[in-house]
Amino acid sequence: MTAAQQSTRTATVTKPGDREIHIERIFDAPRERVFAVFTDPELIPQWYGPRGTAPEVVEMDVATGGDWKFVMHNDDGSTTSFRGTYREVTPPERIVQTFEWDGMPGHVAVETAVFEDLGDGRTKVVTTTLFHTTEERDGMLGSGMEGGMNETYQRLDELLERLAGEA
Amino acid sequence: MTAAQQSTRTATVTKPGDREIHIERIFDAPRERVFAVFTDPELIPQWYGPRGTAPEVVEMDVATGGDWKFVMHNDDGSTTSFRGTYREVTPPERIVQTFEWDGMPGHVAVETAVFEDLGDGRTKVVTTTLFHTTEERDGMLGSGMEGGMNETYQRLDELLERLAGEA
Repeated sequence: MTAAQQSTRTATVTKPGDREIHIERIFDAPRERVFAVFTDPELIPQWYGPRGTAPEVVEMDVATGGDWKFVMHNDDGSTTSFRGTYREVTPPERIVQTFEWDGMPGHVAVETAVFEDLGDGRTKVVTTTLFHTTEERDGMLGSGMEGGMNETYQRLDELLERLAGEA
Repeated sequence: MTAAQQSTRTATVTKPGDREIHIERIFDAPRERVFAVFTDPELIPQWYGPRGTAPEVVEMDVATGGDWKFVMHNDDGSTTSFRGTYREVTPPERIVQTFEWDGMPGHVAVETAVFEDLGDGRTKVVTTTLFHTTEERDGMLGSGMEGGMNETYQRLDELLERLAGEA
């Protein structure tokens, strides 16, 4: 990876309206492969979550109405988990799912991820997360989410490079 | 039950804001008993849901972070289910929980139920349901919810009368 590429590999995070987080990130891989990495339970453990966490896929039924749950095993032996339900899965374009962290049970956001084919072998992933309240949105932003997400997406870059090498 | 009592036993349903449903209903029983009926898995099958449905409590962990799931067995043999997570349980005053219907998976509302002691042996239950969008709120209102809820609350009246008779 060159320095120029590195510099573009930071997500753009904005706050449209009072209950949303909007994230854009470009990946150097074709849309089908990026979509596959988001939806393959075998690949999730290789990239999901910041460095120092080992994600375990407990449940991942990638279809409308299916549930998902990932338990994150931290280096210090502690765990935390995320779960939700798939509302829509439209390969390779769109996933709508709920998202709930076990640290704030019953606080449920809706994440819409759109996968845009940039036509040059790259893919833009646009994620919009809708919360019930402004407080929940701002709590998520204040939790260190952005740093964790950038690390997660860097791990995803690395996985996509490995998969390209294997192809 | 007299005719005068009957006429007051209809819930008041209003739509404050653009994403909420607000419901008020008075029950002729003390607050502790009304709260108990909402939170006792042994009693739920005796009142939850409109007539012609037999509710089965599949899961009901009444504590912060606990999940609940009720499967409704209809007279025609079909089933539908509701589920959610308790966000707050403060006896005998307040329950905050999520609510999701299996017919629209991933569409999650937050229900806040407040139990007001009216000081004369009666209890007002005030429920506010917050949706992610106006469309979800109006979809719920258009689903026949209000009629079903009034039947449900009439069954609850009957259960409260039976429990008062036993006491």
